[in-house]
Amino acid sequence: MDRQVVGILGGGQLGRMLVEAASRLDVKTLILDAENAPAKQIRASDEHVTGSFADAAAVRELAEKVDVLTIEIEHVDTTVLFELEKEKGEKLQIHPSPATIKLIQDKFLQKEFLLKNGVAAAECESVESTEVALEKVGEKYGYPYMLKSRTQAYDGRGNFVVSSKDDIPEALKTLHSRPLYAEKWCPFTKELAVMVLRERDGSVSSYPTVETVQKDNICHLVYAPARVPDSVQLKAKVLAERAVSLFSGAGIYGVEMFLLENGEILLNEIAPRPHNSGHYTIDGCATSQFEAHMRAILGLPIPKSKTGFALSTPYTSAIMLNVLGGAEPDSELEICRRALTTKGATVHLYGKTTRPGRKMGHINIVAGSMDECETRLAQIQTGESSSSSSSDEQKEKPLVGIIMGSDSDLPVMATGARILQQFDVPFEVTITSAHRTPFRMTKYATEAAARGIKTIIAGAGGAAHLPGMVAAMTTLPVIGVPVRGSTLDGVDSLYSIVQMPRGIPVATVAINNATNAALLAVRNLAAFMPKYQLKLEEYYASIEKEVLDKADRLETIGFESYLSK
Amino acid sequence: MDRQVVGILGGGQLGRMLVEAASRLDVKTLILDAENAPAKQIRASDEHVTGSFADAAAVRELAEKVDVLTIEIEHVDTTVLFELEKEKGEKLQIHPSPATIKLIQDKFLQKEFLLKNGVAAAECESVESTEVALEKVGEKYGYPYMLKSRTQAYDGRGNFVVSSKDDIPEALKTLHSRPLYAEKWCPFTKELAVMVLRERDGSVSSYPTVETVQKDNICHLVYAPARVPDSVQLKAKVLAERAVSLFSGAGIYGVEMFLLENGEILLNEIAPRPHNSGHYTIDGCATSQFEAHMRAILGLPIPKSKTGFALSTPYTSAIMLNVLGGAEPDSELEICRRALTTKGATVHLYGKTTRPGRKMGHINIVAGSMDECETRLAQIQTGESSSSSSSDEQKEKPLVGIIMGSDSDLPVMATGARILQQFDVPFEVTITSAHRTPFRMTKYATEAAARGIKTIIAGAGGAAHLPGMVAAMTTLPVIGVPVRGSTLDGVDSLYSIVQMPRGIPVATVAINNATNAALLAVRNLAAFMPKYQLKLEEYYASIEKEVLDKADRLETIGFESYLSK
Repeated sequence: MDRQVVGILGGGQLGRMLVEAASRLDVKTLILDAENAPAKQIRASDEHVTGSFADAAAVRELAEKVDVLTIEIEHVDTTVLFELEKEKGEKLQIHPSPATIKLIQDKFLQKEFLLKNGVAAAECESVESTEVALEKVGEKYGYPYMLKSRTQAYDGRGNFVVSSKDDIPEALKTLHSRPLYAEKWCPFTKELAVMVLRERDGSVSSYPTVETVQKDNICHLVYAPARVPDSVQLKAKVLAERAVSLFSGAGIYGVEMFLLENGEILLNEIAPRPHNSGHYTIDGCATSQFEAHMRAILGLPIPKSKTGFALSTPYTSAIMLNVLGGAEPDSELEICRRALTTKGATVHLYGKTTRPGRKMGHINIVAGSMDECETRLAQIQTGESSSSSSSDEQKEKPLVGIIMGSDSDLPVMATGARILQQFDVPFEVTITSAHRTPFRMTKYATEAAARGIKTIIAGAGGAAHLPGMVAAMTTLPVIGVPVRGSTLDGVDSLYSIVQMPRGIPVATVAINNATNAALLAVRNLAAFMPKYQLKLEEYYASIEKEVLDKADRLETIGFESYLSK
Repeated sequence: MDRQVVGILGGGQLGRMLVEAASRLDVKTLILDAENAPAKQIRASDEHVTGSFADAAAVRELAEKVDVLTIEIEHVDTTVLFELEKEKGEKLQIHPSPATIKLIQDKFLQKEFLLKNGVAAAECESVESTEVALEKVGEKYGYPYMLKSRTQAYDGRGNFVVSSKDDIPEALKTLHSRPLYAEKWCPFTKELAVMVLRERDGSVSSYPTVETVQKDNICHLVYAPARVPDSVQLKAKVLAERAVSLFSGAGIYGVEMFLLENGEILLNEIAPRPHNSGHYTIDGCATSQFEAHMRAILGLPIPKSKTGFALSTPYTSAIMLNVLGGAEPDSELEICRRALTTKGATVHLYGKTTRPGRKMGHINIVAGSMDECETRLAQIQTGESSSSSSSDEQKEKPLVGIIMGSDSDLPVMATGARILQQFDVPFEVTITSAHRTPFRMTKYATEAAARGIKTIIAGAGGAAHLPGMVAAMTTLPVIGVPVRGSTLDGVDSLYSIVQMPRGIPVATVAINNATNAALLAVRNLAAFMPKYQLKLEEYYASIEKEVLDKADRLETIGFESYLSK
């Protein structure tokens, strides 16, 4: 795809996945790292450089052989990168820029820079490694607060939670000989992350907002998209894109954020490279974060859409599970074997020697809905026999959802459910009230289409807001059943449901007539699924026959005898 | 994932993609092929074997280093494979079995074997390379018939269409010095293919049926799933699985078939290895054909479901486009660059030197529907965005029919028609009265579904019988619009339309609200046609913005000024 040769500083798993993406595009890569590093294993070349990305001479050796230099880890020697930038000029592209790498290496300077530029982040200050200084911070921020190493920190190493004044000596001991900074405690409810792509021309765009779950300070699970409302997802994307636009140099950036209880989002930190929270993109998106990074640093095209970025595949949910080295060598393979037996799961191993707690690989799980992803995750994690999942699979995905505001509507709605049974239409029935469970209703309405539901039947009585509200929050056809209450004969519900304003239609049927609602749902399906059309034709032939039989009988026995039966 | 080392006979693009899949599972691969073959480029090792897969000594050299031996091409030395099978016994797995490879190498023996086992295929016979023999075939099969090389044939090389007796000398010249067989002409309408996985225990399962389009005898496009009815897809899967179950040895098999005009499916040929028609699986399925092959030959688990195979991702359509070397070196990269700008498209290049007509790579396009895939394909092929397709859509068959009882209803119903125009939904508008043109109405209602209409919108005032009567005579969803008359404020029409008896539903919207009727029709379409779902999402975003803008203005200028404007 491109004749430029890419040099990568670091050959761990991120480098390996970059190499894989580059090879698909037939782009040549050269790695600087130890012999047989994961990335080197999958790119045959006698031009790889053996050594450390923190060693200036080795970096120079690699730079001589390549057109574009990039990183898979930010702890590289930046002094030599600045020198190379000056010396080589146009002849060597360095992405991200040395200035970006240097700024991000010092987590305090990074955060100070972000705060100065108006990016929301936790209050923090640089602090000397003395008990007096740390006590002063405690007086200012209160306890607990975070004490962090400014440099060389990753996967939670270099962080210390100072819960009280008494923790201070231990904190100093743990983080001894490191430059430190203190950060006000963030009472977060979830951790979010967004992978942002910065192109050579400075334009930024991003993948969906994801939710990360840490375990022992290491990324354990990633849910994509994050299980938060759309508005929160959007807010996180905007914050992440704005933050990355402040830096220079092309490539993918991982932006970690905190979601607070009050809905506020604070930036935690930025990694100027592919990131663990973006591994799901390999199987969950049309273009992975690794290929996106390669395209951006090489100046290759990125698809654009009206809304900006167009790399992500819609309608797919994904979960990523990190695979860490177990206590026994290769014991982590047990979970991988279970993943191989699980539908929609893909195992990625990095070719590393097992060590307890080491990131050995990850498992991506994709499915049509997050619910289904979570079911598959449970199967992989617990190893529960696949009998439960096969029984799930036996139960076809519902095509029609029947919902009602109250269980008192069930006798009416059940007649509709029975019609769907009669037509062998897979369906689901549940209760969700517009007024008493508005959030449950919102979740149902917004997720139904992605779960494969094709039509929603909503029954409600009285003020009957459910059908109209659900219709306002989905693009699926919604059929409304006015349920007759004890007063007003159901006309109240009928008007509430049928007289929707322009823009938001509800397909309204007769009062209490859930049968017709179900038949209408079958008609909607039948327009595209011929097997239901055949069944409808049979159904109408049978009800026609029923009337003809009655007519025959009436004509035969006369109206008086007919009436008396 | 597994300590077994896999040796691959052949290191072309199929080998390369096998290696990629193996590396993801951290499975070590060794290749026998020329120096720097595509597969060798992406697996660093000093143990690869340089030489030919047709050379017994080289095959032996590779066999000494591996636990499992497999192929990416069937033209390998099978004699040495039979010897190794005997000598090594349990110590070396060979997949597929040498017997399978040998049988498949001779396309006549392969076909004879399939026919003998009751697999539907074109009649054929082995034939001597003489004019007399070929003339006899012509007398028996008629013209045209196919003359084919029994061995060493691929990508249509080795095939000759004998159109008449006069072609015979030319045919003999073209296929000189090859063992030949003749095949009765197959008047096929489409070529289908299925990738079948055979596990070590002999169980078979398969990916979806795809449609292949050849150009100059080379695979040009693959549509997944095939654009044929479900029943045809299923029939092809059953045939393919049955055929592969006759062979021995694990791995993926590519089964090519012909679909005849009468609906019959005939097996064309089988490749006992990954196949060009399965490349779409890399991006279109959770597990690619390459990983499936690796798992099968290593005895690693494959997810199972009640219906058999569970490797394929549902709800995804895919198209694969082969990238062939152009007249100028690297000229094929132009189409690749266009693919990079296209949403859902992924470029796979094989690391080969350009030669005109050589398979250099392929492009996978995935989207929620085949329509969308085809739009993206057109963009990649022509470099134009789909502006021309909108004029095609004008000529498209109507999906929605708008009918009304009287032209006095038109001002109301026209608002619905305008919505359909806005959403680019092909539709028709006409007048048919339940009371004044009952026979015209009957004809319309009974014929609409067969004409491709998916939803009918019927408007009527007063006694308003049209929607209910039409609903009684079709299985299509019917949406009723009560039109307000001069008396009773439209409540008469509303009740007439909504209070349908059990059995015959009419999806009723608010009085005079043809806008909502049209939007409901779009929702019905969108549940199955993703392009309309995207448009609905845009529409709802725009009406949300309208309200937000008004709110902003009201808050800014105050309610009194707002009112006075």
